Formats: sequence, structure tokens, C-alpha cells
Amino acid sequence: MQKENLYNQDSITALASPWGESAVAIIRVSGRDSLSMLSGLFEGRAGSGGRGNSGSPPLTEAKGFTMKHGVIRVPGSGEEIDEVVVAVYRAGRSYTGENSAEIFCHGSPAIIKRILDLLYEAGFRHADPGEFTLRAFLNGKLDLTQAEAVNEIVRAKTDRARAAALSRLSGSIERKIRSIKDGILKILAAVEVRIDYPEEDLEEEIVSERELEHWQEELEKLVSTYGIGKILQEGIPVVLAGRTNAGKSTLFNQFLKEDRAIVSEIHGTTRDYLEGVVSMGDIPIKLYDTAGYKMPAHSLEKEGMKRTDRIIRASRLILYLVDASTGVNELDREFFSANQNSKTLIRIWNKIDLSKRPCPVGFFPVNAKTGEGIIKLSEVIVERVLGGRSLESAEPIIDSIRQKKLLERALGALKDFRTGLSENIPLDVLGVDLKEALDALGEITGEVTSQDILNEIFSHFCVGK
Amino acid sequence: MQKENLYNQDSITALASPWGESAVAIIRVSGRDSLSMLSGLFEGRAGSGGRGNSGSPPLTEAKGFTMKHGVIRVPGSGEEIDEVVVAVYRAGRSYTGENSAEIFCHGSPAIIKRILDLLYEAGFRHADPGEFTLRAFLNGKLDLTQAEAVNEIVRAKTDRARAAALSRLSGSIERKIRSIKDGILKILAAVEVRIDYPEEDLEEEIVSERELEHWQEELEKLVSTYGIGKILQEGIPVVLAGRTNAGKSTLFNQFLKEDRAIVSEIHGTTRDYLEGVVSMGDIPIKLYDTAGYKMPAHSLEKEGMKRTDRIIRASRLILYLVDASTGVNELDREFFSANQNSKTLIRIWNKIDLSKRPCPVGFFPVNAKTGEGIIKLSEVIVERVLGGRSLESAEPIIDSIRQKKLLERALGALKDFRTGLSENIPLDVLGVDLKEALDALGEITGEVTSQDILNEIFSHFCVGK
Repeated sequence: MQKENLYNQDSITALASPWGESAVAIIRVSGRDSLSMLSGLFEGRAGSGGRGNSGSPPLTEAKGFTMKHGVIRVPGSGEEIDEVVVAVYRAGRSYTGENSAEIFCHGSPAIIKRILDLLYEAGFRHADPGEFTLRAFLNGKLDLTQAEAVNEIVRAKTDRARAAALSRLSGSIERKIRSIKDGILKILAAVEVRIDYPEEDLEEEIVSERELEHWQEELEKLVSTYGIGKILQEGIPVVLAGRTNAGKSTLFNQFLKEDRAIVSEIHGTTRDYLEGVVSMGDIPIKLYDTAGYKMPAHSLEKEGMKRTDRIIRASRLILYLVDASTGVNELDREFFSANQNSKTLIRIWNKIDLSKRPCPVGFFPVNAKTGEGIIKLSEVIVERVLGGRSLESAEPIIDSIRQKKLLERALGALKDFRTGLSENIPLDVLGVDLKEALDALGEITGEVTSQDILNEIFSHFCVGK
Repeated sequence: MQKENLYNQDSITALASPWGESAVAIIRVSGRDSLSMLSGLFEGRAGSGGRGNSGSPPLTEAKGFTMKHGVIRVPGSGEEIDEVVVAVYRAGRSYTGENSAEIFCHGSPAIIKRILDLLYEAGFRHADPGEFTLRAFLNGKLDLTQAEAVNEIVRAKTDRARAAALSRLSGSIERKIRSIKDGILKILAAVEVRIDYPEEDLEEEIVSERELEHWQEELEKLVSTYGIGKILQEGIPVVLAGRTNAGKSTLFNQFLKEDRAIVSEIHGTTRDYLEGVVSMGDIPIKLYDTAGYKMPAHSLEKEGMKRTDRIIRASRLILYLVDASTGVNELDREFFSANQNSKTLIRIWNKIDLSKRPCPVGFFPVNAKTGEGIIKLSEVIVERVLGGRSLESAEPIIDSIRQKKLLERALGALKDFRTGLSENIPLDVLGVDLKEALDALGEITGEVTSQDILNEIFSHFCVGK
């Protein structure tokens, strides 16, 4: 499908920084006429106090990669909305490839709302999620794997996930795919020569078996990185469970303190748990602190227990804490027998300082308050989560289920070709398999694409990206 | 005190956009050596894909108000952290007045953390709250009322509050104060002439009584704007109360929908209420949705009731909802008799569609589900909150308690001078009063200041501002 058909010529705008109070907020605009449309709201300010850009040309004549200091004004009334700096980017040398600008205003929700409203009135449309990046793709600034990486890099939870996404952003997957495609194209060319001149050299191998095996391996290796990519990008849910007062929140806070991480509370009518993302051995661990187990006294608490159970079921690993000073009781034993699968359960003997009882076999001793045993516990968690796999990969790591499915389609087609070859199926029939493989690879990078595919990809983006 | 003594020469950095995942994040750096320090981490990128700034000078030689495209790298290993754009500002023509820069990176917490860590390693110190603006003040870019306005503008909740803060940022208070100071200085000069030449023209009025009265009125008017300023900036707490199922949450959501406002949940171990800020007649109304009243069944619920009571006591206005289909019951009556002060209570007859009972006298009929009666209710709320006052003011509106106290000190001194004059107290004694008034006014704009005052002011700022 033609890229041009997908292209929307109107000018778009969106907040690019998170919503909230802060020093600075960024509002993006992009589109062929965006600079002239914006210039109706912007008034450059002469160098008052030395901050301005006195004597500089108006916005529409500003050079790319320069900034203008001034104010945003209501066109009719002249009312000043905010003092701002506007960064100007010129078509060809901008993120989207179009004329575009970034407005740096004070990070006040009242100001952000007001400026966006003025931009709408001036004819800007609010951008769809990922629409800036979609335009960058349509303008040939990025291939589709790079466009996906833009979103993945924003969502990266640990440094390793960031590095993997950055490598994708720099085009590592696109280069890999291109090399595989070139290899398969060469095979296809050989096959087509043989179709055109079937009489020549019948004894000679049409394509090298070794080469076919090589490209198949390359595809398999790339597919196999998806498991790591998914762990790196999405993280592993790990839940803290145990009776009330077993020290779950203390351990939760201790883990977060180690990592200086940010706790995000779960939104909803009733908040029964906290979520915090910590990096353990470069794996993002999504840690859940739940309501404690106890004999439910009334229906409200029973409801809470149910929600805790739901989180436990959704987690990959359960850290079950027992207070060493009170020991294992009936409720704990019930839990253990209900969760016998040792792969997902780590039993923790907490408050070792408060008790003389020795740590029982199968338990892991910690002192959540002081952090004693915590580092070793992290290592045990990482070991369980990886299960023998390694995070290291010589290949670029893929994180997109879309890319994985297409790689598998290419791989399947290549295998079909090999089988067909060994079964002496006519070459003109087999050629279709190679073309199918090339098609799937082309779809990964976006050479072959459709509106539906693009909608699917970009709808998962942040607005403003 | 000398401004120079307060001045810290080191280079500072902080995140200037809100923490969170977003398209773009902004990291600020400032300090005499900030650009050369940053250049060790930054590598400009030639115009690959047309986005770069090929052939442009390195960061340290970049002109002010220009942007550089490139990557942030770990100095030793060369590892790439992110693709960024750096905005360069030169001493004299920057926000702080120093060399400074803004790094626009992908809005990923992992990236923000990593870049900040690299900046710390490169010698940057994490900025204190408001330290960028403090430097702007110390470098003479802003007077103290403008510096305070920077923070007030970020915190502005409605458009009217934003406009008032922007006017302060543009120096409206500083200009007003200066005109009052000039007036008082002229009076002081006349007094001093008379002290030096006591024999001349004893019958002539030393200073015009009318002039004294004028400056006193000017000060009084400015002081009186504080009430409006406080309402505009901080908003008015209004609580929704009533029995369970009276429709509090429905009304809460209806108000927010009208205003397209953002709900922020209250952080804490137990979240019993929601807070949303809506603008009614340009007044920011902080709306609280609380747990419903009922006969507490157990201690946990009693605890919840207590917290609801606390919010109700802290609110300026109570919207008490009664479900029209069930009518007023014992619990409602108890609440009404406990909160007889009609100034703070608005009784609401909700679900008018579900009941044939007429709305009782003293109740306000609404249908929270459909929004019927909501606009009128907003008007009633605004009327109650303003209590006859007007939001309009010809004067610049002050919002800072610090400024208010200093204005009152100046006002008190001016009144003392007038009283002394009428009591024929010696002029050399009275001169002290005028100097006291001038001192107080000088402290408002920051001509006279101390480390303690500055610490107090800037510690309330966002980090990164």
C-alpha cells in the first residue's frame, strides 16, 4: 500500500511531557502549516533582561534547531497566557520530517489546558497516540522496528531494557532483517534462474543446503530473543504474601529503598495493594504488597482477601513471609499446601533478630527491617525468574509480539521451502514460499504495510510521541 | 546583605518535567562550567536521516538559543544512553543568567535516572527546590515578587489564578511597590530638609496630608487583594457528604465531567476519599468525595467515619446529599443538628427523578446522574464562597503571605508617622517610621534580603524550577 495514502496533511498538537505540576511542560505541534499557525499565537519578545532574542526573525522565518523567547497571546483580546520558549524545527530536519515546534511553557495544568485550547482554535487537531512517530515513519525517518522502539524506550523499566530498546531505535533489527532478506533474495534469484533454464546442470545443487540452514538459524535466534525481550520490557510480577504483621510492607519498602525506586499506587475504588518496580539483576521486578492474610472477620475483609488471591494468581513468584517470632501457624500451612508448586513459591523467615528459633529447612532467612539477607534474596529471585536463561544476547533483542509472529511466519515459509526441496516439489511452486518469507520480513520493517497494521502499532503509544 | 555571598558557583541539575512515562522529559543543567561539563557526555550527531546538525560546532561553542541533536554517552565505555536534543543557553541570556542547557530525552524513568546519575558523576550537584529561580534572582533576572510568581504560576489551578500569577511574573507588583516607595521617599526627603533647616517656613505643611493618605490607601488596597489571591491560588475545599448511596460519587463525577478536570487520589495508607479540582466561576474548588455515613458496624468503619469527619471539619462548604427516594432519616437529622451553621452547609435533594416527594424547603434539587440542576448549584457554591466579594481587582493581586506581612509592616509604619505628625513628635524621631516603611517595601522586592528569607521562599518551589 502506498504510504502517501495514509498521510494526513493537517497540523497536530499534543502535550509531550507528563500531565502535572512541574517546572516546565512541553507542547508539540507538527504539520506543514504548523509554524505559521503557531505564529498567530506567539509574540517574540525583545531581549528584556537579556533573556530574549532581540532582532531575531519571526517564527515563520526562524531557522531550524533554534529557539525563540516570547509569550503566547489570545489572538483577539491580546491576553497573555504564558511566557514561553518555542523550539523551531524545519521540514526534513525534524522528528516528524515536517515543519514542527515545541512550546516550553510553565508546567501548570491551567496553562497547558489554555494553550492547547488556543491551538485547537487556531486549527490544530489533537494528535492520536503515536501520531508524531507515525508521521516520522511515513516520511521515511524511521522504519517500523525503530518506530516501535520509540515506544519501547519510553516504557523501559530498567537500564538493560533501555539499552535493548535504544539498540532497536538505532536500527539494529532493521539491519538484521535486511541481511536475512538479502540472503533469501539470493536464493530466490537462483531458484528463478533454474525455473527459466530448467535444462542446465541438473546435477548441481540449486541452493546451498548450508546457506538455507544458516538463514533458518538466524531467524530462529532472533525469535528466541523474544522471551528475554518480554522479561526486560514488561518485567516479572512478584507478590509479597503472608499473614498480617509478617513484615510484608517492611520488606517491600526495603527492596524499594535499595533501588531508590518509585512506588505507584494502584488506582481504583479500593486500593488494596501497592506496586513498585525494582531492578534486580537488571530485570524489572514488579513488586506487589498485598493485604495480609487473616481469618476474615466480616464481608469487607473477605473481599480484600479475594483481591489478594487474584494478585497472587497473576504473579510469577510468591514471596511468602512468616514472622519468625510467632512461627508457622495453621493459616500459613493452608497456604503452603494450596501452593505446593515450589517453582513459584519462596518461603521467607522474617524477623530473624526477634526469635531464637532456627530458620526451618526450605525457608529463606531475612531481617526486612535492617535489610539483612535482602541482596541474597534478590539473587534467588533472579535465578528463579530466569530459570537458566541468560539476559545476554549477541542478537538484537526483539520485544514486539508483532515482530515475533512475522519472524515465525518467515521461518515457517523457509522450512516449507526446505521440505519441498527435499521432496522434489516443482520449483515454481516452492518459489511462493520464499516470496512469503520475504513478505513477512518486509512487513516487520514496514516496507509492506496497511492502515490496520499501523493503527494497531501506534494506538499503543503515548499521546505526544 | 550582599547577593554575591549567597551565590553558589557549582553546577546544578534537576528533572524539570514531571516524573513518569511520556514522550519527552527535560533535564536542566546550569552553572558557569555546565556546558563544558555536559559536553563530556554529549556527542553531536551528523545529520543522519536529516535530523542532525551536521557540521555544527561542539556544545561548548554552540550559540545561545540553539539546539543540538546527538546522543548521551557514558564517558569511559562509550555506551549510548539515549538519543537527545540539547538546548543551549548562554550566560546573560538564559533563565538563570548563567550558562545552562536543557536535555530533551525520551520520557522513560530508566533513562532519566541514568542521565541524572551520569551528570552527578560528571560533577553536577542535584539542584535544591527553586534553585534555578534563586540563581535568576541573584543574577538580577527577576525581583523577588517575580521569583515567587514563577512558583505561583506553576501551582495555578484555574485560568484566573494563572492570569494573576502571570501579571505578577511580568513585574506588576514590583512596579506598584516601586511607585509607593518613590512616594514615601519624596516625603522622607521633605522631612529631612526640614530636619536640616528647622527655622524655615514653620507654618507650611511639611508633607501633604492628602499625599500621605493616598499612599496609605494604596498600601491598604494591595493588602486587601490577598484574600482574593489566596482563594484563586489555593482554592476552596468543598466536601460531599451524606449517607451511603446518596449519590455523592455520582455528583462528584458529574462536576468533574463538566470541567474535564483531573482527579488526584489522596496518597496514604488508607485512601478513604478522592480529591478533584474543578473551576467554578474561575474559583478552584477542591472537591472531596468521602466515605458515606452509616451506622458503623465495626471498628474499621468507625475509623473511616472519623476520617470523613476530619475532612468535613477542614472544608469551607459541605454539600450534604439526601436521596429523595428514601428521604431524610435519623442519621441525616443528626448531621443537620450538628452542623446548624447554614453558611457552610448546602442541603441537596438528589435523585429527583426517582421520587414523587417534593423538594423540601431549604434543600437544593438536583439529579446527579443527568446533571440536572448542577450549573445552578455551582452558582450557589460560588456565591457562598465569595460572600459578596468580587474576584475582579484593578490592583495586582498578591498571593504571598510574606508579601502581605511586609505590606502590613509598611502600612503600620506609615500610620505611626501620621499619628506622630499630628502629635508634633520631633521629625528626627518620625523619620525612623518612614525608613521602616521603605525597608519593608524593599524586602518585598528583594532589594533587602537575607539567606533565611531566601531559603524560606525557595524551599516551597518544585525541584527543577
